[in-house]
Amino acid sequence: MTSAERGENGERGGSELRRDFLSGRWVLIAPERARRPNDFQSVRAPTIDVSRTSCPFCEGREAETPPEVEALRDESPVPDSAGWRVRVVPNKFPALTPGPEPTPEKRAGGLFESLPGTGVHEVVVDTPDHDREWVDLPVDHIRDVLGIFRRRLRAIEQDSTIQYVQIFKNKGGFAGASLRHPHTQILGVPVVPQQVWEELSALEHHARESGGCFFCRLIKDEEAGPRRIRTGPDFIALAPYASRFPYETHVLPRRHTALFRETTDEELIGLARMMKFVLSRLRDVASDPDYHIVLRQAPVTRGARPGDPRLDSFVHWRIEVLPVMGLVAGFEWGTGCFINPIVPESAAAALRG
Amino acid sequence: MTSAERGENGERGGSELRRDFLSGRWVLIAPERARRPNDFQSVRAPTIDVSRTSCPFCEGREAETPPEVEALRDESPVPDSAGWRVRVVPNKFPALTPGPEPTPEKRAGGLFESLPGTGVHEVVVDTPDHDREWVDLPVDHIRDVLGIFRRRLRAIEQDSTIQYVQIFKNKGGFAGASLRHPHTQILGVPVVPQQVWEELSALEHHARESGGCFFCRLIKDEEAGPRRIRTGPDFIALAPYASRFPYETHVLPRRHTALFRETTDEELIGLARMMKFVLSRLRDVASDPDYHIVLRQAPVTRGARPGDPRLDSFVHWRIEVLPVMGLVAGFEWGTGCFINPIVPESAAAALRG
Repeated sequence: MTSAERGENGERGGSELRRDFLSGRWVLIAPERARRPNDFQSVRAPTIDVSRTSCPFCEGREAETPPEVEALRDESPVPDSAGWRVRVVPNKFPALTPGPEPTPEKRAGGLFESLPGTGVHEVVVDTPDHDREWVDLPVDHIRDVLGIFRRRLRAIEQDSTIQYVQIFKNKGGFAGASLRHPHTQILGVPVVPQQVWEELSALEHHARESGGCFFCRLIKDEEAGPRRIRTGPDFIALAPYASRFPYETHVLPRRHTALFRETTDEELIGLARMMKFVLSRLRDVASDPDYHIVLRQAPVTRGARPGDPRLDSFVHWRIEVLPVMGLVAGFEWGTGCFINPIVPESAAAALRG
Repeated sequence: MTSAERGENGERGGSELRRDFLSGRWVLIAPERARRPNDFQSVRAPTIDVSRTSCPFCEGREAETPPEVEALRDESPVPDSAGWRVRVVPNKFPALTPGPEPTPEKRAGGLFESLPGTGVHEVVVDTPDHDREWVDLPVDHIRDVLGIFRRRLRAIEQDSTIQYVQIFKNKGGFAGASLRHPHTQILGVPVVPQQVWEELSALEHHARESGGCFFCRLIKDEEAGPRRIRTGPDFIALAPYASRFPYETHVLPRRHTALFRETTDEELIGLARMMKFVLSRLRDVASDPDYHIVLRQAPVTRGARPGDPRLDSFVHWRIEVLPVMGLVAGFEWGTGCFINPIVPESAAAALRG
């Protein structure tokens, strides 16, 4: 029996190195590591919430954020008043701020390249409730949040200074959240991040070699396999072959689309259902861990890839759910390799339920 | 005033994007983010140590680890007995274990590549004292630990199945350490990690274009500049231009060498002094944060780069000190970009003292 077969069957055994096809990154699947003792007992997700009485995202404290960009309201049509379901505000402590088209600057003989921090940094307050995570919200409400993402993506791509939009959620203090109230961030950056470029190149290479989209092929191959987590009519949830994190889950649209903003109303409902299922299984199987939700998609500026009109044909957006079950250690920083103590096939079996 | 000049002068202001020359990674230097409130008050480095009474790395409990690989002993020459200063043992919960030359396996039409987890995973117990970090140890003792690293690197490279050796230290629970007792890990892996390959390619490209080593040039350029932290006779400590983390520090040997194991006895003392200075300033300036120490060097298998005998000419080893001042968030996972709220020139000025 090869180590790959061992992994395939989800049995515990020796460790195995797996390579991620797109990034080339090696992941060490090392079940033995799960047996380690840990004397840092206090390194646990915080359970005390100190901010309920002063949370700037709670209903009734609309004045404590910058004026809203937009909101879904059932009751009041007045901006920055109570009565909303989902609300979007500029980040009060932005990593990037709007400005004119940035010009790159090179110094020290080309060693140092910089750019002014021009861009967009918004916060989507997912719900007026201080402690209802996505997993606790009705499917329709999650659909509304996803619909707001789509609206913001359509609006932000009109800004010609933005090349890439990253939507992400940090749930819990160990995922890097600074406020507990459920929220999602949208960052529009004036560059195409290197990691995104590298994935685009790998996807393009695959398309050139095989004539098709990598993810369309993956969905077909994995549909009935040991890494499937849930298959729906419009979306599929999979444990990646080279998962970096325990219970890592990727949610992919069956319909080939490069950008999230191309999602239809009907698909948004399917996606909301899928996200609720995945997050609810994760909570049950992995003791309610902190996690990130990360959107991966094509750059918004088509001109970002001069001379290549085929971007739409080989990029396929996805959502990654990345549980925080351990902290990033020196080995990961030194090598870019990850150590994952849970065999992806075992994770998928547990999450399938 | 350009944003680059703002950064150069270490002033607070708008944010700036900086690109790391070797990796192409963008870093967002965003001083505004340092003003954020944080309601996850309990996300702090743990201060309670629950393991002192049962720590497997403490003197007198040598039987609780696998038999030692080697040790520096003043008193007893008997292995696995008390009386040591530095001790090396196999990791009890190894991510990799020794085995025959691994053969890669490709499946699913080349999408899935795997390799048995063959390799070496050792733990260097830095000191018999349960809570004396490097910063608390005498320079001679740090020199001894570094000397043990050199010995292990020389021994491990004899193993033809190993292509890359990663030495790293996780100090504190937020750096991913599972045990408090000061220790360092050595992982010998049967592949050259993708991130290492990519850096090698960038270094080779620089050497081809400019005729020299990137780091030799960097040392010359940065020697008297605003990012210098300390300049010694054999080593220099710098804040990287595109630092990912607040107070990130890189320690470089002045003498061009590709592998740590080529370090001389005299250089080891200089390095021990430099590490003690850097860690002690970090403790004072940044409230004693958790951190990683990570060695970056050439692959050990020269044959790993077929047809390229010039590896030694363009690779220059370094040690990275990576403070854990915040947690990795969804934006970083989605884009590979980092957000750093401390301007590197300000960090260097503070660390210089």
